[in-house]
Amino acid sequence: MPRFFIEQKSLRGHGSIIVIEGADARHIGYSLRMKPGDKLIFCRDGTEYDSTITKISETMVVCDVNKSYPTESEPSIKLTLCQALPKSDKMEQIIQKSTELGAYRIVPFMSERCVIRPNRQGAERKLERYNRIAEEAAKQSGRGIIPEVAPIMSFEDMLAGISSDIRLICYENSGISISEAGIDDKKSVTVIVGAEGGFEQREVDKAKDAGCVPIWLGKRILRCETCPVAVTAVIMNLSGNL
Amino acid sequence: MPRFFIEQKSLRGHGSIIVIEGADARHIGYSLRMKPGDKLIFCRDGTEYDSTITKISETMVVCDVNKSYPTESEPSIKLTLCQALPKSDKMEQIIQKSTELGAYRIVPFMSERCVIRPNRQGAERKLERYNRIAEEAAKQSGRGIIPEVAPIMSFEDMLAGISSDIRLICYENSGISISEAGIDDKKSVTVIVGAEGGFEQREVDKAKDAGCVPIWLGKRILRCETCPVAVTAVIMNLSGNL
Repeated sequence: MPRFFIEQKSLRGHGSIIVIEGADARHIGYSLRMKPGDKLIFCRDGTEYDSTITKISETMVVCDVNKSYPTESEPSIKLTLCQALPKSDKMEQIIQKSTELGAYRIVPFMSERCVIRPNRQGAERKLERYNRIAEEAAKQSGRGIIPEVAPIMSFEDMLAGISSDIRLICYENSGISISEAGIDDKKSVTVIVGAEGGFEQREVDKAKDAGCVPIWLGKRILRCETCPVAVTAVIMNLSGNL
Repeated sequence: MPRFFIEQKSLRGHGSIIVIEGADARHIGYSLRMKPGDKLIFCRDGTEYDSTITKISETMVVCDVNKSYPTESEPSIKLTLCQALPKSDKMEQIIQKSTELGAYRIVPFMSERCVIRPNRQGAERKLERYNRIAEEAAKQSGRGIIPEVAPIMSFEDMLAGISSDIRLICYENSGISISEAGIDDKKSVTVIVGAEGGFEQREVDKAKDAGCVPIWLGKRILRCETCPVAVTAVIMNLSGNL
């Protein structure tokens, strides 16, 4: 059944009616050729709304909500992925794949070894694109939320913003195994991943001061876009979500 | 230190001398501008050879082997990834990333829902390309072997060729968690992954008859190129290799 994420303003009549306008309305009417009586699922913030179309026009779709319930597909652990900005389209790949695997929030940040340094305008364009990719991936993978991609921030701001139960930083030179990080019974985890070339020692030291534990990722050298996907998959496994 | 995979014929004098010809010799002499006295690591079949250049010409590099020892980077478990042929360049991505993560062998095969169906010539070209990608990824990630990519085979031939201790098939409709598959103390595992759209029930039944256990990959729908990377990462974690 077609599935759409909706904004708060689409929920009317205390959640008994859903009104869709704009691109999604055109998509439902034109592309999917849906008609009154057809069924859809809407999703907002971890809640699913089984709905039936009651009215449809060129610009608006009105639906009755038959049933609402918490999305089953959301992982039990909230994983924040802090990713140093890599080259070319790797950030897009990382956002797409970590969203499928269940990341809750993605924080792009600048580290000393980052090669690309977007200006303000470039950063705004990227952020818009990143959030669009997160939304697409959330739709395709059946997520209950769209992971927020935060604005690109400094290493220090990224560290200051961490509030998870467990805080990890991927560091090739040393660290514990992810299996030893005590993830299984925790509600939230933040994992910090480097761009090409990883981190400077002083960055790792700052992260340690902020309560982050270095983790080891095996004896093979992972590409910077492989590391966050592998870590997300392993954390989802260790927390019983994969 | 530069690191090259070598063929058996490069090992001379019962392993005390290494002779490199062809593209690698040009790479060492021209691109890297190495000279007699410079040190290199050669690698073959899980053994590393610390070597010193003794002679170098336009077409040949001769080295003395100082020390040879088993590569430390090889995982303790031999993972065979059987991957149904996906669309576009996804197979290349899968080979690259599973090689980094430690796959031992990759077997592309045809399943009922495969969209591309290369002819014999196309399949040969693909195989050559796939093996080149495995070699590149093995070099970059510091592997001790180059994972072999087998010729594209039928579903039945793929099943008939499995000899691992543990045999798994990724199936979205049901299955056990990978954590329950008993991977931790095993020497070898084969995991079968579908292309876009997954498997037909009758394919899963045939796989079960061949001793394969269906595994579940969480409540989110993974893209076909994300699934093998996630599974490889989790198996490497469960076997103590990540």
